Amino acid sequence: MKIELGDNRYGKAENRVVRITREQSNHHILDLNVSVQLSGDFDDTHLNGSNAKVLPTDTQKNTVFAFAQKYPAMEPEAFGLILCEHFLDTQSHVTRAEVRLEQFLWDRIQVDGKPHPRAFQRNSTLTRTARVVMDRTANGSNESFVSSGVQDLVILKTSDSEFTGFIKDHYTTLPEATDRIMATQVSAKWRHDSHDAQTLKKKDFAKSYKLATQKMLATFAEHHSLSLQQTLFEMAKEMITEQPDLCAVQMSLPNKHHFLVDLSPFGQENTNEVFIAADRPYGLIEAVVNRDDAPDAGFIWPAW
Amino acid sequence: MKIELGDNRYGKAENRVVRITREQSNHHILDLNVSVQLSGDFDDTHLNGSNAKVLPTDTQKNTVFAFAQKYPAMEPEAFGLILCEHFLDTQSHVTRAEVRLEQFLWDRIQVDGKPHPRAFQRNSTLTRTARVVMDRTANGSNESFVSSGVQDLVILKTSDSEFTGFIKDHYTTLPEATDRIMATQVSAKWRHDSHDAQTLKKKDFAKSYKLATQKMLATFAEHHSLSLQQTLFEMAKEMITEQPDLCAVQMSLPNKHHFLVDLSPFGQENTNEVFIAADRPYGLIEAVVNRDDAPDAGFIWPAW
Amino acid sequence: MKIELGDNRYGKAENRVVRITREQSNHHILDLNVSVQLSGDFDDTHLNGSNAKVLPTDTQKNTVFAFAQKYPAMEPEAFGLILCEHFLDTQSHVTRAEVRLEQFLWDRIQVDGKPHPRAFQRNSTLTRTARVVMDRTANGSNESFVSSGVQDLVILKTSDSEFTGFIKDHYTTLPEATDRIMATQVSAKWRHDSHDAQTLKKKDFAKSYKLATQKMLATFAEHHSLSLQQTLFEMAKEMITEQPDLCAVQMSLPNKHHFLVDLSPFGQENTNEVFIAADRPYGLIEAVVNRDDAPDAGFIWPAW
Amino acid sequence: MKIELGDNRYGKAENRVVRITREQSNHHILDLNVSVQLSGDFDDTHLNGSNAKVLPTDTQKNTVFAFAQKYPAMEPEAFGLILCEHFLDTQSHVTRAEVRLEQFLWDRIQVDGKPHPRAFQRNSTLTRTARVVMDRTANGSNESFVSSGVQDLVILKTSDSEFTGFIKDHYTTLPEATDRIMATQVSAKWRHDSHDAQTLKKKDFAKSYKLATQKMLATFAEHHSLSLQQTLFEMAKEMITEQPDLCAVQMSLPNKHHFLVDLSPFGQENTNEVFIAADRPYGLIEAVVNRDDAPDAGFIWPAW
Repeated sequence: MKIELGDNRYGKAENRVVRITREQSNHHILDLNVSVQLSGDFDDTHLNGSNAKVLPTDTQKNTVFAFAQKYPAMEPEAFGLILCEHFLDTQSHVTRAEVRLEQFLWDRIQVDGKPHPRAFQRNSTLTRTARVVMDRTANGSNESFVSSGVQDLVILKTSDSEFTGFIKDHYTTLPEATDRIMATQVSAKWRHDSHDAQTLKKKDFAKSYKLATQKMLATFAEHHSLSLQQTLFEMAKEMITEQPDLCAVQMSLPNKHHFLVDLSPFGQENTNEVFIAADRPYGLIEAVVNRDDAPDAGFIWPAW
Repeated sequence: MKIELGDNRYGKAENRVVRITREQSNHHILDLNVSVQLSGDFDDTHLNGSNAKVLPTDTQKNTVFAFAQKYPAMEPEAFGLILCEHFLDTQSHVTRAEVRLEQFLWDRIQVDGKPHPRAFQRNSTLTRTARVVMDRTANGSNESFVSSGVQDLVILKTSDSEFTGFIKDHYTTLPEATDRIMATQVSAKWRHDSHDAQTLKKKDFAKSYKLATQKMLATFAEHHSLSLQQTLFEMAKEMITEQPDLCAVQMSLPNKHHFLVDLSPFGQENTNEVFIAADRPYGLIEAVVNRDDAPDAGFIWPAW
Repeated sequence: MKIELGDNRYGKAENRVVRITREQSNHHILDLNVSVQLSGDFDDTHLNGSNAKVLPTDTQKNTVFAFAQKYPAMEPEAFGLILCEHFLDTQSHVTRAEVRLEQFLWDRIQVDGKPHPRAFQRNSTLTRTARVVMDRTANGSNESFVSSGVQDLVILKTSDSEFTGFIKDHYTTLPEATDRIMATQVSAKWRHDSHDAQTLKKKDFAKSYKLATQKMLATFAEHHSLSLQQTLFEMAKEMITEQPDLCAVQMSLPNKHHFLVDLSPFGQENTNEVFIAADRPYGLIEAVVNRDDAPDAGFIWPAW
Repeated sequence: MKIELGDNRYGKAENRVVRITREQSNHHILDLNVSVQLSGDFDDTHLNGSNAKVLPTDTQKNTVFAFAQKYPAMEPEAFGLILCEHFLDTQSHVTRAEVRLEQFLWDRIQVDGKPHPRAFQRNSTLTRTARVVMDRTANGSNESFVSSGVQDLVILKTSDSEFTGFIKDHYTTLPEATDRIMATQVSAKWRHDSHDAQTLKKKDFAKSYKLATQKMLATFAEHHSLSLQQTLFEMAKEMITEQPDLCAVQMSLPNKHHFLVDLSPFGQENTNEVFIAADRPYGLIEAVVNRDDAPDAGFIWPAW
């Protein structure tokens, strides 16, 4: 029996970099949580403890902060591309660089109805995310994969949601529902179909992100839902239809159950008004929706 | 040696009640986390295990949900007052009822620039809070204490913050700072000066809350800060000055440190641009600011 | 109307200090989370922004780490006493120093049945806590208050717990239970009755802590419970009876509900075997139990 | 352009089932968090909203609780196998069932040095995990994949850890370390090499789990580490060598940095005694180690 090293990667996770850009008296914040992972020829450190090919995670951290100063005001996807390029360019034994980014959003504080130029409140309604994977190919060039996304976005609709016609078996107790609350906490990612770093760097990720999230939310609001699965598919389909270069969307949607409270023991009728918001367990709906001709995902997304 | 029961209270905590109000096709959400605590003559259950005077926490929970149906569309402070009154009115051996409320906020989803009447996204920028304490007095009437507040509100300013002139001792290494990032996560509560339930129930808590938070944020934005302590006092002072019936403000402000990253080893100058957001440790500034003639706080606020 | 500064304090919170003591090849870990708060004459910084009397929280942090090197292998209570003394001794305008400590416990890793001298696994079964408050008195001497405690300790018993004979009202649906699961997550603190720093420093806090927690757990296990309130009182009473210098015990006990699952729709009988562990809401039982002649608590414990 | 449904699955997550087994007066607890996911022919619900093939997640929840009563005292791996079999046997359009389990451990409370038969304290030192994936194959039989694991296990060694000889580049500031603290929070999974459900059900998972975790811990303790990567490989290799049917081990090891505190500004020398435990960022080392002839992993483990 021989024991060998399989898939492996390492890096510095959760570098909390805050980049202030000062445009005269008007300031801007870029607030990121950046995680780097490198893969390649790392047998020596695992098997023998030789670190001759190991770029320390501390150095990766320094690089993230140094680059945040060199390259201000970037979209997270673009910052990830530049970091991945750096690690592949300078570390010949690294064959894949991955950067995951969380962007925390800030709104300007309103003073007398006007946005203040240098004071902010954090907008925790959602976290914007991005992920970049860059692979060194056999011919020495790089192949890039970029996805964008959101997480921590909680949405709810008070009408246009039903769940009927499902399988009944020995363990069924759930009644059919023709008018229920639907609520979920969206984790969504969408892939950009180009795999060329130069093309990707020119993309207007800010605009694409704005369109994608608006379309996702509007579809959720306006769609008459027969199941959370159907709503997931509809949101993703509309996002791709509007921006076909978002060639695939992956969503993970916990069904945040709101149970109607039985008030009949107290002589009260609960006409779909009072609910208890439950914590656990929860339904969990996960799917990928894609253009039938979408290019390969590479390693940008984990299989579940 | 005799061992006796001291201060005690009990109740059902974290009742997650969601109340939908349907105004024709336009729906409203009231999303609360309600905790009830009762104090009074409970020696028997502690000392002897007799529950003859115990209103079970399960019954308290039922009451919260039943009242949420009976009394729709209330401000959290008003809902707390009604619950406290109920427990004092119906449980003669209860001498104090306390209700703490967290309100989770929801914005309407925008569809083509218009707010949707029945679809929402949670606004996690802050959590609105309220606290009601109602005491049965010697003459049999009730004395009510109400505070309102916010928590989880993260704010940051990129200018007008310095920290100089402090004590230097054997353990000092901190340099003086004339231009630093100031960031904090606000937990604030403010007391309403009336102790009369009927007066309090008529108060426009929604308007008061809006004014208080706007003033707090505007003061943070516009104030030139010489210390976080000074900023705390200034915010509280302005809130009370604008609404003197908010007779006292208590704030707990962690100093969320953003440290300037030293880029000189890499030949780069960091001109107040790139920061690392630190988790722990953090400074913690806590104070009460009040009108000199503010009535007693009673048990509405814990001493630290 | 005059607006004034009320109660206030400030300090550095959550200093994560790990102290390794090397006794030849046998090593020991002291793993603490230390929070310092100072009160006194701090009007100037709040009202005018003058920091002439402010010992920066950064300096407090440095002091914590420096003292951890100077004073190895201390019990958390003793470490808190030394820190409080330092701040009162060196800062004449400080009138109260408070130190809260969390101690994370580590067990030695077992290798072939023997404890390893230099390798550890964290024991997260509970967190040991301590709290020290030191007040400068009118005559210039100090008055010290020390409490010890535990938190994050989850305990459960599968027998000897009932809940019957409680009040029934319009909102009651809970059936009586003669054999239920009782589970709680203990937060407990107990006060030492001496207020003299020199006496307290000589106390064997390690032994006292061990006795107190063993007695608490054994009482929980052996007690036949008629309510969680009764169990709380019984545990505290036994702790004080065994060690009367623990003159008062404060406990906060969430009732972690385990609901019997109704399996009758599936033709199965659930004879007290299968439960769902619920998250929210939960009952919450809080009380102080004390010797009738216990000295004043001072500011060691917040009122609720 | 056609838009289609890709990989998808759904189910009930985080069913918190507590199973008490009463062996006369001696009771046992099985405390699980069970998550079920089903995949198969679910195009209809996603594309058209027809739920004719949807077994509701509520029914899956009921099944978990009903089976916990029917099949007491099982190891988590075996419980997962039985659940997967049920869903594949009864739902002909389901082609894959996955069950993830977390087991929370309980120790008996010690009373006078003896374990109590019916009172417990939760042992949060680690969480035991298991994962079962069962695939319906082309010939109609099932192929099963089972992994076991641990998470939330924090370990630390105070000697025998160095990190030297690494790459230095423009962004390097880290000094070499010949004697550092090494600490990590282990998430580890190991695969059982049989894919046959009947064989797997007969396996002594309790014994295998105990051996695997003991070997992992002992190797961490005794190994002289030149890098966390080397330690990871060594732990996994020893686990497989001892139990070759654990054909592959996947580990995710955050490097929980403990930084030596510079006490020289205070005239103190820190001889590897006082450290600050940092939160973020942290190094993250991830790898699979396997027998060179290990069977395919199937979908038991996500690619990163």
